[in-house]
Amino acid sequence: MAGPKGNAVIGQSGGPTAVINRSFIGAIIEARKHEEILELYGARHGIQGMLNDEYVPLFAQPNFVLQQISTTPAAALGSVRHKPAKEECSKIFKNFKKMNVRYFFYIGGNDSAETAYIINSFAADEGYDLRVVHIPKTIDNDLLVTDHCPGYGSAAKYVASAFIGDNEDNRALKGVKINIVMGRNAGFLTAASTLARQYPKDGPHLVYMPEMAFDIDRFLKDIEKTFNEHGRALIAISEGISRQGIYKLKAGEKPDYISKWLDSFVNINLPKKYMPVDENKAVEVDSHGNVNLSGSSMMGEILAFIVKNTLNIKRVRADTLGYPQRSFPLAISEIDASEAYKVGVDAVIAAVQKNFDEGSVAIKRTDEDGIYKIHTLITPLQSVQRRTKTFPEDWIVEDGTIDERKFREYAVPLVGELPMAGRFIKAIF
Amino acid sequence: MAGPKGNAVIGQSGGPTAVINRSFIGAIIEARKHEEILELYGARHGIQGMLNDEYVPLFAQPNFVLQQISTTPAAALGSVRHKPAKEECSKIFKNFKKMNVRYFFYIGGNDSAETAYIINSFAADEGYDLRVVHIPKTIDNDLLVTDHCPGYGSAAKYVASAFIGDNEDNRALKGVKINIVMGRNAGFLTAASTLARQYPKDGPHLVYMPEMAFDIDRFLKDIEKTFNEHGRALIAISEGISRQGIYKLKAGEKPDYISKWLDSFVNINLPKKYMPVDENKAVEVDSHGNVNLSGSSMMGEILAFIVKNTLNIKRVRADTLGYPQRSFPLAISEIDASEAYKVGVDAVIAAVQKNFDEGSVAIKRTDEDGIYKIHTLITPLQSVQRRTKTFPEDWIVEDGTIDERKFREYAVPLVGELPMAGRFIKAIF
Repeated sequence: MAGPKGNAVIGQSGGPTAVINRSFIGAIIEARKHEEILELYGARHGIQGMLNDEYVPLFAQPNFVLQQISTTPAAALGSVRHKPAKEECSKIFKNFKKMNVRYFFYIGGNDSAETAYIINSFAADEGYDLRVVHIPKTIDNDLLVTDHCPGYGSAAKYVASAFIGDNEDNRALKGVKINIVMGRNAGFLTAASTLARQYPKDGPHLVYMPEMAFDIDRFLKDIEKTFNEHGRALIAISEGISRQGIYKLKAGEKPDYISKWLDSFVNINLPKKYMPVDENKAVEVDSHGNVNLSGSSMMGEILAFIVKNTLNIKRVRADTLGYPQRSFPLAISEIDASEAYKVGVDAVIAAVQKNFDEGSVAIKRTDEDGIYKIHTLITPLQSVQRRTKTFPEDWIVEDGTIDERKFREYAVPLVGELPMAGRFIKAIF
Repeated sequence: MAGPKGNAVIGQSGGPTAVINRSFIGAIIEARKHEEILELYGARHGIQGMLNDEYVPLFAQPNFVLQQISTTPAAALGSVRHKPAKEECSKIFKNFKKMNVRYFFYIGGNDSAETAYIINSFAADEGYDLRVVHIPKTIDNDLLVTDHCPGYGSAAKYVASAFIGDNEDNRALKGVKINIVMGRNAGFLTAASTLARQYPKDGPHLVYMPEMAFDIDRFLKDIEKTFNEHGRALIAISEGISRQGIYKLKAGEKPDYISKWLDSFVNINLPKKYMPVDENKAVEVDSHGNVNLSGSSMMGEILAFIVKNTLNIKRVRADTLGYPQRSFPLAISEIDASEAYKVGVDAVIAAVQKNFDEGSVAIKRTDEDGIYKIHTLITPLQSVQRRTKTFPEDWIVEDGTIDERKFREYAVPLVGELPMAGRFIKAIF
């Protein structure tokens, strides 16, 4: 151990997960053990707090408080979606110097890794000795290098459990049920719906991923076929489905989202006082350039409307699974929670090593004799920032169908136990 | 015990709950103990199976199967929303006579009680000796006579837990968040969102119930005030809010649902092949006369759109909590589950009594020294069929605000333990 002696700053960034606070608390508890770190300051709402000098010292918090926060969903420090500009970095570093900050931990997804990368580059340019560590989290599971991301296992457990319940619901009151699942640019969370299949005819019967080109007429044919076979159809659709599908996107090309296409047929003409003053404010884009898809519950409703109109099926419903996917407190995967804690701890351990420079904590799977096992490693910030990983192409059979065996081998250990549905049995004698 | 010797039929009806199968399994296990009941037949999809002669004998199912089904959400026999017409009753009774059915158990809400009432009246008119018992379930908690309905506690636990997570989410990324909660004509489930309040500034900050008249301009002012005070606003809205509010509805008057009003400003103009052939098919009404509100996720999106446009708040989101409220397998209230089991058991015990005629199982609260306690009683079918109960008027302070103390005294025992969120503390020395 031979990092510089000084203070440390930690922040949380991007969309919450059910276990991001485990990483946060893991980092606090580990940081207290290292004499190189004099105090760990929490930045309120990440970069925003760093710009406004809003820091809270964390070492004095009693263990019972840390324990309770670690099991609380979302981001205890507050989160933010903001990419710092150059002049903002100057402002941040004025504070860093004044506070003698030598360690910076940033918990988040690929956008947050980009922020960490920007901060690290600024420090290097200034010749300021700062060790920057990105701690991964995302329910989308779309970070590069790492085998999987803390936060994914619990979100996947929520999605799988919701589909287990909804499969029973759909068996009880037959019809077509469409569930829109989170995951802008990767289908991992949508694929987690297939973990709900426990008996041969269980749903989801069809699974549409953002990686594959979505064709509405093909989709309608798939439903018709499924409905004719089972008398019902339970369907998982990613909020990020597009006309091209991510696999076929050319470099620099933006996906034509189906949600946007469907929205273009919707005209909301409220009394004038309820309408936008500026028509251009309709689409919301954050400073990382992400289009806001949170309004995708329209997509579910419009798709249900189309299914009803074209297939002459009476009972068609849609749900958009929404924020409970990332913050429901009763569907936390134990393995996910413990790994989230571990990446927080390991970030601190790495940062105080003699030759540490910068990096992001990644998980490598090192199963032994088929028993799930992992270790962590440090990968350069450059390798995880901005870009995202997609669902492996050879795990998809065709649009609507994934290779369940390959996916289960990957996902089951991350999600852990799921509630088991019961079925009547036929007497065999 | 002196009921007639014969067979029994059991069916499930209406929207699923997380614990309706507990009542079902409770009835099977109890029925096996009584020699009056030779066999218990399960009707597939309730009245629908009774019309199509689809019955399954249940006594031979092994206990481990019953155990597993009891913890499975939704309706293991299949459910239905159908009110039998006179000629359908004739058909059902042809089978009942052939099968020597002397007991009929129907698990459901007030619509299902109406079905049980119709079946019972038909038997009386025919002079056919049939004992009819309605077993209550509903997540809406809107049955008359009973203190509360099995199914409500678990749905309330889901809603409260979702709000606990979402309150953290909304604290982390500040803005306005609207959650649409189930409950067509009673605000009990929407009120359950307030159980999420654990610390002074916790949401939901505003709660809109179907009982109260909803005024959009008042609603916007409420949000503005809350947002100015907290820098955020978490809001619970019942899917069933209307212009008049149920309390002010005149006899025979239908509520003007806000969801329908908002829909009237939305024009969906898809390519012709995706549009309805018959324009009148837009609104779906079941044979009990209930308007389908499942498409209420549009309401959340449009309300969010209005808030954004009028209050100049950047981050406004809406979720419609959807089917997980009634079928999520990981948010089951233990007390709700055990009471659901008990009403199934007690329905059978009542039915085989010497002088039993007909009725619905109701729960009476008989707390002793402030300790929660219940017993069941039988109330005539007439007293629970068709009509529904509303949230008590003196538990509402004004629109947007309920009397939390009165509601908690009622609801906390039904929901049981909830996950506790953690907060940093200020050092006091």
